[in-house]
Amino acid sequence: MNKGRLEAFSDGVMAIIITIMVLEIKVPHGTEWRALVPLLPVFLSYVLSFIYIGIYWNNHHHMLHSAAKVNGSILWANLHLLFWLSLIPFATGWMGENSFAPAATALYGGILLLCSIAYWVLEQTIIRKNGKDSLLAKAIGQDLKGKLSPLLYLTGIALSFWSPWAANGVYVLVALMWLIPDRRIERVYEEE
Amino acid sequence: MNKGRLEAFSDGVMAIIITIMVLEIKVPHGTEWRALVPLLPVFLSYVLSFIYIGIYWNNHHHMLHSAAKVNGSILWANLHLLFWLSLIPFATGWMGENSFAPAATALYGGILLLCSIAYWVLEQTIIRKNGKDSLLAKAIGQDLKGKLSPLLYLTGIALSFWSPWAANGVYVLVALMWLIPDRRIERVYEEE
Amino acid sequence: MNKGRLEAFSDGVMAIIITIMVLEIKVPHGTEWRALVPLLPVFLSYVLSFIYIGIYWNNHHHMLHSAAKVNGSILWANLHLLFWLSLIPFATGWMGENSFAPAATALYGGILLLCSIAYWVLEQTIIRKNGKDSLLAKAIGQDLKGKLSPLLYLTGIALSFWSPWAANGVYVLVALMWLIPDRRIERVYEEE
Amino acid sequence: MNKGRLEAFSDGVMAIIITIMVLEIKVPHGTEWRALVPLLPVFLSYVLSFIYIGIYWNNHHHMLHSAAKVNGSILWANLHLLFWLSLIPFATGWMGENSFAPAATALYGGILLLCSIAYWVLEQTIIRKNGKDSLLAKAIGQDLKGKLSPLLYLTGIALSFWSPWAANGVYVLVALMWLIPDRRIERVYEEE
Repeated sequence: MNKGRLEAFSDGVMAIIITIMVLEIKVPHGTEWRALVPLLPVFLSYVLSFIYIGIYWNNHHHMLHSAAKVNGSILWANLHLLFWLSLIPFATGWMGENSFAPAATALYGGILLLCSIAYWVLEQTIIRKNGKDSLLAKAIGQDLKGKLSPLLYLTGIALSFWSPWAANGVYVLVALMWLIPDRRIERVYEEE
Repeated sequence: MNKGRLEAFSDGVMAIIITIMVLEIKVPHGTEWRALVPLLPVFLSYVLSFIYIGIYWNNHHHMLHSAAKVNGSILWANLHLLFWLSLIPFATGWMGENSFAPAATALYGGILLLCSIAYWVLEQTIIRKNGKDSLLAKAIGQDLKGKLSPLLYLTGIALSFWSPWAANGVYVLVALMWLIPDRRIERVYEEE
Repeated sequence: MNKGRLEAFSDGVMAIIITIMVLEIKVPHGTEWRALVPLLPVFLSYVLSFIYIGIYWNNHHHMLHSAAKVNGSILWANLHLLFWLSLIPFATGWMGENSFAPAATALYGGILLLCSIAYWVLEQTIIRKNGKDSLLAKAIGQDLKGKLSPLLYLTGIALSFWSPWAANGVYVLVALMWLIPDRRIERVYEEE
Repeated sequence: MNKGRLEAFSDGVMAIIITIMVLEIKVPHGTEWRALVPLLPVFLSYVLSFIYIGIYWNNHHHMLHSAAKVNGSILWANLHLLFWLSLIPFATGWMGENSFAPAATALYGGILLLCSIAYWVLEQTIIRKNGKDSLLAKAIGQDLKGKLSPLLYLTGIALSFWSPWAANGVYVLVALMWLIPDRRIERVYEEE
């Protein structure tokens, strides 16, 4: 089966997700600088989601690069991940337009949580197909970041009802944690 | 003629179709959880359509992979399929925003029916070009699923006016039937 | 210079143009069949534009396939074509939402005219780079269809103010004329 | 690491940016020619932004073509550039719908400035990875255009508050300066 088309389709979907989010930043009616002020929370939530989609694209890129074989289960695990990623623009819009209201902040964290679970499922599906001794399996290793992220998202969701800003602080923290590219895979590759 | 560009263009169109559907889930004005309740039918219809586009992408992937030769007729049969697929977001939106009203549910089934016919036409066009002894022709064989689907869609359309939920049950059934990846082609490939 | 990226970018832009047009078919508020009636002109103009973008994609595919060399001028001639194609959704929307009003029908023809001129410019730019003895130059030959189309569009534009239906009849005629795939290039290829 | 997917993702994002801008040209309600008159500033700002995205795509194409090696930093510098480019449709819409109001014209220039800085950062990141003796480093050379552009954007931003038309004149000037394809890279290539 053809890995190229899986990558091309995923690239297409992620490129569209990252770009249509900008449509949520509605052109204001005023012509003064202060017409932009109400857009600030929308803009900030856009920045955060842009970084998250960027991280997913980046890690997806690494993960598939190290997958030698692709089958039907991997195609569907990949579509499952794309499904939850496709809900990020909606959650971003709701959070941004309501200036980080508690429920919207919790929903945003919930979508991030489901994306991280879907990513983990895809990872396991690829490892099952390619074997425990595969490049990917070795590169992932303990996968500390992958195990920590869902816990942090859950913390963020819980914090949303107490302080949405603290919750968003946690989401930013997870993003920063992942911004450091997955050197594990690069390292294992270089050792080969 | 170049199969790569046909695949790339189809991937692009399907990636956009699957992603712009999410724009139908309009960001609600309220900040409470209950603001999300009216979105539930829109969300459910989005899930169903996402799975359908996923199935079409998946099977399209398999079908073109086993096509050795491409000509002008195949290009147009492919565009014809993309045309009906491009109407799925509209039918999804109408059905979702009207909480599965009878007419909208019937229209949704009608679009699915036309997509399945267009897929069959594309399949036959590829087989005519590649020969009855081609990999695809052997892999398709009796094509039970392909023959059953239109009948089930017609049943769903008829049921819409009696019970839209029963109709949607049928559409979910067809989706589940196809979610099982097309092992026929994979099997024939492995035998080669 | 890399022809692959030029094709990929053009495929992307055309895939988006063909798909976002469907966003103009706004989901109606009613739940009855008759809620769809006012959408009929929008739908018809969508069908016509879908076919036109399909024709352009198809011929673009053939033309670049037979171009061996690509340079900066070709990149810009290509972007120029994509610019006019990108205005088709706007012209389609204006014509469809106003049930083929004279001015909207004339504008639609005008955009088609500018697309055909931009296509001709791109063709000539490719021939200038690849030489008069190139595959493309031989394949184009007299280019009767290419010369006839602008004249027919001009006829359509003039007819718009007398009978928009006659004008649209002319646009349909040109589309049918081009739907016949460009056998010239295929024939020359096979002779090689 | 795979340069192909970086190019494909960038092509996708730029193709979407260039195309969704056209959605800002809202279909007018009137059926007369004069219904188009208020769209003129929106159309003009669309033309300018289309050319700018075209220039970025074109130069991005050249730059990555001459980059032999890609790493994580390059991926992120590229996403950073795509982020600022993704804000062009918003700035274009605000400027166009307000007929080139001072604040909107200044914001447009500010986004162009940030895009040019992000492009420079990406260029430097690629050179750092590929070495000072790399093809790209030699091709860029003094990079007069790259150094002049930010200064001209700053001039444009300052002029916005005095005369938005003069500011837009400067933006058009920078675009014309870049429309001349980057012959430096082509020249160095041919010398090799």
